[in-house]
Amino acid sequence: MAEHTNKQLDEITLSTESIYKGKIISVQVDTVKLPNGDESKREVVRHSGAVAVLAIHNDRMIVVEQFRQPLGRTQVEIPAGKLDPGEKPEDAINRELKEETGYTAKSMKLLFSFYTSPGFADEIIHLYLADELTAGDAELDEDEFLEVTEITLEEAFAQIREGRMSDAKTIMAVQAWQLLKLGAQPGQ
Amino acid sequence: MAEHTNKQLDEITLSTESIYKGKIISVQVDTVKLPNGDESKREVVRHSGAVAVLAIHNDRMIVVEQFRQPLGRTQVEIPAGKLDPGEKPEDAINRELKEETGYTAKSMKLLFSFYTSPGFADEIIHLYLADELTAGDAELDEDEFLEVTEITLEEAFAQIREGRMSDAKTIMAVQAWQLLKLGAQPGQ
Repeated sequence: MAEHTNKQLDEITLSTESIYKGKIISVQVDTVKLPNGDESKREVVRHSGAVAVLAIHNDRMIVVEQFRQPLGRTQVEIPAGKLDPGEKPEDAINRELKEETGYTAKSMKLLFSFYTSPGFADEIIHLYLADELTAGDAELDEDEFLEVTEITLEEAFAQIREGRMSDAKTIMAVQAWQLLKLGAQPGQ
Repeated sequence: MAEHTNKQLDEITLSTESIYKGKIISVQVDTVKLPNGDESKREVVRHSGAVAVLAIHNDRMIVVEQFRQPLGRTQVEIPAGKLDPGEKPEDAINRELKEETGYTAKSMKLLFSFYTSPGFADEIIHLYLADELTAGDAELDEDEFLEVTEITLEEAFAQIREGRMSDAKTIMAVQAWQLLKLGAQPGQ
């Protein structure tokens, strides 16, 4: 990631108040000096980042259905997981794909690294494209319950329409797959 | 959004502890009963939702550069903004496009509604495609500082490569634009 910054738009952090330190996120409120000299508050959620993967096997996308407490229902998403402290994304993605779905990939290519919600959170997701998949047994965490399935692009479109598939990384992956099937490179 | 849920994967909320109520987010920790009967904690960030827009004017995408405190630097993103309480997304998107960029659109079409990070947050973003744009004067909030520019698809690809453009809604919009230029409908 380039560290470009437009100095005329910069805010200066004056102080930071820690609100919460949890297992997945921590929360802080920063007091900042705005470009016009006024002060304002910025609520910030810290997250260690995650990896996700567009994994195509026999022209079907591997997806997992799992319960999402913030939504109060299950969602169909591409395989994904948090980065362990100090873990490299390219190592994490092979581990997560294997743990969640049992599949291993011969090669992984980074498609996009993106911030999920930069207005209030620093969570970054590294989205990979997996190639040459081999099936195997999943190895789920003890508090992880999910169902693995494989769906066609048309089924993915239908699940987006129905709202069963409705998170950023998954819709981004479906669009990337749609572009790849048209012979285009996503984002280039 | 369909309210489909797979009962075998459901978690049951046993209690909720409020951690923080802020201006943009609130934070709670829920105790849940897992499908195997065990208990676990789920950290949840509540957010009122937002709208964002892929606005193409003379084959250029309208983007705004602004400072993002969680990242500590500026980012180039598509125009977006929070929903006011009770506000409909289709009303909010016209207001936000006008306020941030000065542009008004003759029509708005919903491309996707997506959760930014359903593992820990309930924030939903409604991403629109704006058509037939007319330029005008922006009307920024008092703590909002941003620069509006227009870029080509090739420039958008370059800004993604350079990491100046790296958030979910913007990369999703760039892919949607790429699909539209290939004659495809994003996600269908």
